[in-house]
Amino acid sequence: MALDLDDTISLLARTPITLNTLLRDLPEIWTQRNEGENTWSAYDVIGHLAHGERADWIPRVKCILLYGDSRAFEPFDRFAQVRESQGKSLSQLLDEFSQLRAENLAKVRAMNLEPGDLERCGLHPSLGPVTMSQLIATWAAHDMTHLHQISRILAHQYRETVGPWSQYLGVLQCAGHSS
Amino acid sequence: MALDLDDTISLLARTPITLNTLLRDLPEIWTQRNEGENTWSAYDVIGHLAHGERADWIPRVKCILLYGDSRAFEPFDRFAQVRESQGKSLSQLLDEFSQLRAENLAKVRAMNLEPGDLERCGLHPSLGPVTMSQLIATWAAHDMTHLHQISRILAHQYRETVGPWSQYLGVLQCAGHSS
Repeated sequence: MALDLDDTISLLARTPITLNTLLRDLPEIWTQRNEGENTWSAYDVIGHLAHGERADWIPRVKCILLYGDSRAFEPFDRFAQVRESQGKSLSQLLDEFSQLRAENLAKVRAMNLEPGDLERCGLHPSLGPVTMSQLIATWAAHDMTHLHQISRILAHQYRETVGPWSQYLGVLQCAGHSS
Repeated sequence: MALDLDDTISLLARTPITLNTLLRDLPEIWTQRNEGENTWSAYDVIGHLAHGERADWIPRVKCILLYGDSRAFEPFDRFAQVRESQGKSLSQLLDEFSQLRAENLAKVRAMNLEPGDLERCGLHPSLGPVTMSQLIATWAAHDMTHLHQISRILAHQYRETVGPWSQYLGVLQCAGHSS
């Protein structure tokens, strides 16, 4: 499916309010627990999403507009949120994510990207050539990866509690694939 | 983890508003498309969740309280929503799900279930003996299975659009496991 910028922004705009609705003031047994050693809690995921708004998506959009494929993107720092989330409550991280996302979507709208801009090529440090269209689609699909992950983290807390039903619950069969 | 009824109700209460926030008025390219033949769209999933509120969870809770394990639950009808959703908009289904869930949580609260009630046994038509505690935990984990599924259905629409990034997006590696 070709990227429709308005459709993509519709989804991107909903992620922070969706996660806010799901997680704010939810008991900590849901928000602070993870899926085991070296896995993330819902709290960690929100920190990661806030970091992405700060350091990844818009800087990469700008990198394509300014340098095309002549300069590679800065690599993602998948562990930056450990540093950046320190001392912050989940509510603070949800607020940060919402505010940064709103600012970033306003920036994208103000760029008035034309079809030609969406076809422009950038250079990913590992994947090689990628287009602006692929980058913006990935921004939205990355949100869905983390909503997928959060639903799995929450379900995991009741893995034993559901007893024999675990075999019927698709989310409990999910191997995670990646965070 | 043992079932804490208040914690479980906290999560159960958030699912309808979370899905409402994510899906209401979202463009139909997201809400009406599925993952291919014989799979569900987000619209189908909301119909299924509304049906569950009508036919499954509370009737099973009552079945345990009334009959214990002397009578098996009615089997789930996983395709009832095709019939029940006919002619309804997504907004109508979201409203139905919200209203039914709120009524059902009020019913559960009014039952004042004691620890002894949570240990009572019922009889699942395929799984055999299950407890009230397992049933209520499954109600919440079933919500998470479908939030997991919806995030996957939405991401699937951009499976090609993200280009080479698909290999980094966990949600696009998810085989579905079951709906």
